[in-house]
Amino acid sequence: MRALVYRGPEDIRCETVPDPTPPDVNGVVVKIERAAICGSDLHIYHGDLSPEQGYSVGHEAIGEIVEVGSGVCRFRSGDRVLISGVVGCGECIRCRHGEVTACERDTARVFGTNQGLGGAQAEAIAVPMADAALHRIPEGVSPDQAVLLTDILPTGYRGAEGAEIQPGQDVAVVGCGPVGLMAILSAQLFGPARVFALDSVPERLAAAEGIGAIPCNIVSGGAEAVLAATSGLGVHAVIEAVGADASILSALNLVRRGGIVSVVGVSTNMALPFPMALALIKGITFRIGICPVPRFWTQLIPLVAEGRLKPEFVFTHRMGLSEGESAYALFAERRDGVLKIMLDPTR
Amino acid sequence: MRALVYRGPEDIRCETVPDPTPPDVNGVVVKIERAAICGSDLHIYHGDLSPEQGYSVGHEAIGEIVEVGSGVCRFRSGDRVLISGVVGCGECIRCRHGEVTACERDTARVFGTNQGLGGAQAEAIAVPMADAALHRIPEGVSPDQAVLLTDILPTGYRGAEGAEIQPGQDVAVVGCGPVGLMAILSAQLFGPARVFALDSVPERLAAAEGIGAIPCNIVSGGAEAVLAATSGLGVHAVIEAVGADASILSALNLVRRGGIVSVVGVSTNMALPFPMALALIKGITFRIGICPVPRFWTQLIPLVAEGRLKPEFVFTHRMGLSEGESAYALFAERRDGVLKIMLDPTR
Amino acid sequence: MRALVYRGPEDIRCETVPDPTPPDVNGVVVKIERAAICGSDLHIYHGDLSPEQGYSVGHEAIGEIVEVGSGVCRFRSGDRVLISGVVGCGECIRCRHGEVTACERDTARVFGTNQGLGGAQAEAIAVPMADAALHRIPEGVSPDQAVLLTDILPTGYRGAEGAEIQPGQDVAVVGCGPVGLMAILSAQLFGPARVFALDSVPERLAAAEGIGAIPCNIVSGGAEAVLAATSGLGVHAVIEAVGADASILSALNLVRRGGIVSVVGVSTNMALPFPMALALIKGITFRIGICPVPRFWTQLIPLVAEGRLKPEFVFTHRMGLSEGESAYALFAERRDGVLKIMLDPTR
Amino acid sequence: MRALVYRGPEDIRCETVPDPTPPDVNGVVVKIERAAICGSDLHIYHGDLSPEQGYSVGHEAIGEIVEVGSGVCRFRSGDRVLISGVVGCGECIRCRHGEVTACERDTARVFGTNQGLGGAQAEAIAVPMADAALHRIPEGVSPDQAVLLTDILPTGYRGAEGAEIQPGQDVAVVGCGPVGLMAILSAQLFGPARVFALDSVPERLAAAEGIGAIPCNIVSGGAEAVLAATSGLGVHAVIEAVGADASILSALNLVRRGGIVSVVGVSTNMALPFPMALALIKGITFRIGICPVPRFWTQLIPLVAEGRLKPEFVFTHRMGLSEGESAYALFAERRDGVLKIMLDPTR
Repeated sequence: MRALVYRGPEDIRCETVPDPTPPDVNGVVVKIERAAICGSDLHIYHGDLSPEQGYSVGHEAIGEIVEVGSGVCRFRSGDRVLISGVVGCGECIRCRHGEVTACERDTARVFGTNQGLGGAQAEAIAVPMADAALHRIPEGVSPDQAVLLTDILPTGYRGAEGAEIQPGQDVAVVGCGPVGLMAILSAQLFGPARVFALDSVPERLAAAEGIGAIPCNIVSGGAEAVLAATSGLGVHAVIEAVGADASILSALNLVRRGGIVSVVGVSTNMALPFPMALALIKGITFRIGICPVPRFWTQLIPLVAEGRLKPEFVFTHRMGLSEGESAYALFAERRDGVLKIMLDPTR
Repeated sequence: MRALVYRGPEDIRCETVPDPTPPDVNGVVVKIERAAICGSDLHIYHGDLSPEQGYSVGHEAIGEIVEVGSGVCRFRSGDRVLISGVVGCGECIRCRHGEVTACERDTARVFGTNQGLGGAQAEAIAVPMADAALHRIPEGVSPDQAVLLTDILPTGYRGAEGAEIQPGQDVAVVGCGPVGLMAILSAQLFGPARVFALDSVPERLAAAEGIGAIPCNIVSGGAEAVLAATSGLGVHAVIEAVGADASILSALNLVRRGGIVSVVGVSTNMALPFPMALALIKGITFRIGICPVPRFWTQLIPLVAEGRLKPEFVFTHRMGLSEGESAYALFAERRDGVLKIMLDPTR
Repeated sequence: MRALVYRGPEDIRCETVPDPTPPDVNGVVVKIERAAICGSDLHIYHGDLSPEQGYSVGHEAIGEIVEVGSGVCRFRSGDRVLISGVVGCGECIRCRHGEVTACERDTARVFGTNQGLGGAQAEAIAVPMADAALHRIPEGVSPDQAVLLTDILPTGYRGAEGAEIQPGQDVAVVGCGPVGLMAILSAQLFGPARVFALDSVPERLAAAEGIGAIPCNIVSGGAEAVLAATSGLGVHAVIEAVGADASILSALNLVRRGGIVSVVGVSTNMALPFPMALALIKGITFRIGICPVPRFWTQLIPLVAEGRLKPEFVFTHRMGLSEGESAYALFAERRDGVLKIMLDPTR
Repeated sequence: MRALVYRGPEDIRCETVPDPTPPDVNGVVVKIERAAICGSDLHIYHGDLSPEQGYSVGHEAIGEIVEVGSGVCRFRSGDRVLISGVVGCGECIRCRHGEVTACERDTARVFGTNQGLGGAQAEAIAVPMADAALHRIPEGVSPDQAVLLTDILPTGYRGAEGAEIQPGQDVAVVGCGPVGLMAILSAQLFGPARVFALDSVPERLAAAEGIGAIPCNIVSGGAEAVLAATSGLGVHAVIEAVGADASILSALNLVRRGGIVSVVGVSTNMALPFPMALALIKGITFRIGICPVPRFWTQLIPLVAEGRLKPEFVFTHRMGLSEGESAYALFAERRDGVLKIMLDPTR
């Protein structure tokens, strides 16, 4: 079959690779229907992840089950399913709750990251412990929506849930890329009085405004505007969706006494200069982690199916799997107002 | 001054009564700007409350402080304020948290109910322990909105909060009078997938639909429709906003296993036939109580000021205080599509 | 094999029945090592459950897995395990969380109650969906403790958790039978200032006092003593562990404004005369349900293994399975200071 | 009157200063009965706080009200009271909840720190907004216990509450000074399976063991022992009670995936090298702040009064106010096995 394969920095190609087989009696093989490129895939693309190469990439996909192990209880061949971008052992108490990133056996792995699981930007993929890793796509959920449910919508939602937003509170979202936009959509579910959206890219700020946030351009005093709008106190909760040191520190400045900073941006810094004295005076809660995707399907799938959450506007580009190389280049260079790219494995 | 006075069943009149004086060093006198009639005032009107008569009525009002005790910290003469319909001792830990109905000295009292506090359907009113009972009306909050913040909007909100609605859940609101409509508005703050609204009055169902609920007419199978729409499981949470035995029992039938029934309807029954065996199998939480109004101002006032909550549509009629007698009759008889009546003390 | 079989009111006998076989690919057969008689088994004994007879009884047992289906992930033959007294479908999101009594497919069933599952007071038992229904017995947990973890310790704990006890609060436990005693032990985990224990049986009150509660004999003013000790306000939380109308109503009288009544007693009344007006004034939360046993193993097993919870004192009698008939009679008649009886299937 | 006054690094003297007067109509003057020296006072002693000198010090004291403003509602002359070590505006919604360190007007101040409030290591002290800052000392609470309720017991408790300990979890407390010991006592209120206590001072470890913790000497592999005892996973929650970079980083290493690090140690570092990549993988919550003392009196005072919390063992030394200079020296040098020193203002 064909799959996108990492061949070195800025070099991801569509290649022919061996067909997948079910990993064990509790696993399945899914024929991919649609797959998306995630912002975190750019870490791989730029060579930040590991020196090795030759592995297939991608962790956001939906498809149809074409092979199923005898120990799988909840699914059968022919089911159309979402695939969680991250999986755990599938057996421990936390994995069974969907808390796969807190797996008690420390086995959480992301597809397509050279951790022993294949990539989802491919024609097919093998999924272990299918009962814990999949969800049937219900009526009312479109393919675009379903793909977003495999990673970035839950990731944005986790940021909002971790921010413990109470009705009537003020929220800021730092960074309005695809995950930041999902965080804004999700924050609205908790009844905030205002959601301030901070970014420097006009298109992203426009998208944020389109879903009800107050756009604040950080190159023209956006952070100061948030403080001014809150009598200098800052907001009750900040969701950080970039992962850069500067934006994490900005989040700590924007939050008010007693507030929460919930980080969904990916930071690989092992020595962020954290302002303890400021945090002490403010009395804050700082939260960070990788999203345990399946835990949030119970909440998010009905909201999407009922039309209460409409996240699919983030897809600005659609390309074929065979165009993977140029898709990555376009995305990495942020050309053509790109927010997010969907790949079609049949092309 | 003039005030509406209870003179016996179906006999509430506009009379001249003595002007109020501040109850103590921590109290104030408020000149009333607007007052509303509450569904619970009809218990008084129909003589259900007590055999005594001659007391002034009403507990939903806003106005301007015209006299202020020397021990009041947070307010001064000239402040325009909301008045909580219910007050406690104002000193114990719970009253200071706004939890006035759980006052540790058991002193919770409602204005205008012959419990030693004057009525708010009057030209002026004395308010004890003003620091705990009042809130300044901020910019962006209209008089109509402010009056709703003194009782029924917090009451509806408390029903929704007590229902512990999680994003993506299904909710039913039983009874779509003014409080039920406030409960629907409030439930939407918690991100439900669906809110089912049950009533038998077409105008009320239309109002419920207008704020995003799914109308279910109970005279034409509305309750069955809710069960059918939830695969026979029932909804995660029910807010009961009537108080009648039948509607409370209906709420217990509509809720699913592990769910919550949150009652904001007023029931004076001391022997409701509660189905313990059903509740045992379902595993439910049943919650009831009078709303501690000030506790919810922190959440609700910013939402109203920012335009996220627009509850004022419930006011269908405006009349003068001198028309109080006919206002009560119109409201009691549910004539002219009345939902809620506002009274102007200057007329 | 031998098993205790219901043959009609007050007639439970030790009989020879067919050996169990695994119910399906995800099930196991467990050879019973120890089984206990539960207070709720007396409903069966007295003929309250159903007019049918001939089914085996009991739902509290531990043992060794002797046969295992090919789809079982977490267990293998030879494992010593606890068996949850109640099981659900094992597949839905709630069952996988251990919330078996809120199974989304409404399939919660108790062993030994003529619901299609065998009885545990037997030499062996078939367990469906073993991954969700069993837990390996860890080091540090004795057989007596393990049997208590299959039902009544989680049941008492659920009562305490549902009471939402905060450190420093006052708690009352109404009824000090085996489940009430487990509720007292569990309540102590939440840091209460005082736990009042109400019963009329001196031996039970002595047992309650032995685990740190303040004994209050209801035949000599125990309920009034609780109110007096709390300045007439009542306690913050009540755990009801009887199920009779009188004791549930007593719980509602003992709780203070804003408090919680958490019922673990089994009531089959479909028309308990519930005092809504009192509940309205107090503003209470009333909670009831059957315990989802597996949900609480994560909390309880480490506490037992570390010696922080020592529930085994409730076993006052040990008898052989062949003595089942007299064991039931002794337990039903509350002879010999019996609290709880353990049965040995090898005898 | 006499008071301890800061005169420069390592120079605190007992001097004669002007008598205090009530700060305003809502304030009182308290004649001090007992005052303690806090670990955070050593920051002042060592000259870390500010270059100014000449101000009186101390923030942990109890005493009798000798003058009372006319606007004070809850107290009168002659009342024996605890004084919160930190106070806010006393009027905003958070201050009225006891959340003084999150005061909406940003006015939180600590007594005796040159922030405009006198020191408590004196014969008397003026307290503003007395209704929010004081609590009557109830029967059953000794002077030693009462002094601990003004700062370090609530501080330790806040650490435990912020750690969100669930029954059956494993907890580590890093640092067993007086605050760390209070954190251990408090952690026990939440039903943990094990509390590991880490320190390098044998006397402190012995004290920790005496209140039920498992002592782990960090100079002989204590941190590794905690990991080994938890199958390498780490503990569910860590309370950090030192404030040094090394111990905060150690806390992040000791916590397991999905866990919480709750910091009560005082850190003035504005650039702690925070390991974001580790925190991301683990998925942690990191919490820090100054304790809002009055918020916790509701929980802690009944526990002390009922004998469930016995924190007074930390007082190892008793001296007169006139011995303040040598008391500070002894405490700073950790001589004579000192844990905490009580001062008597009459001597």
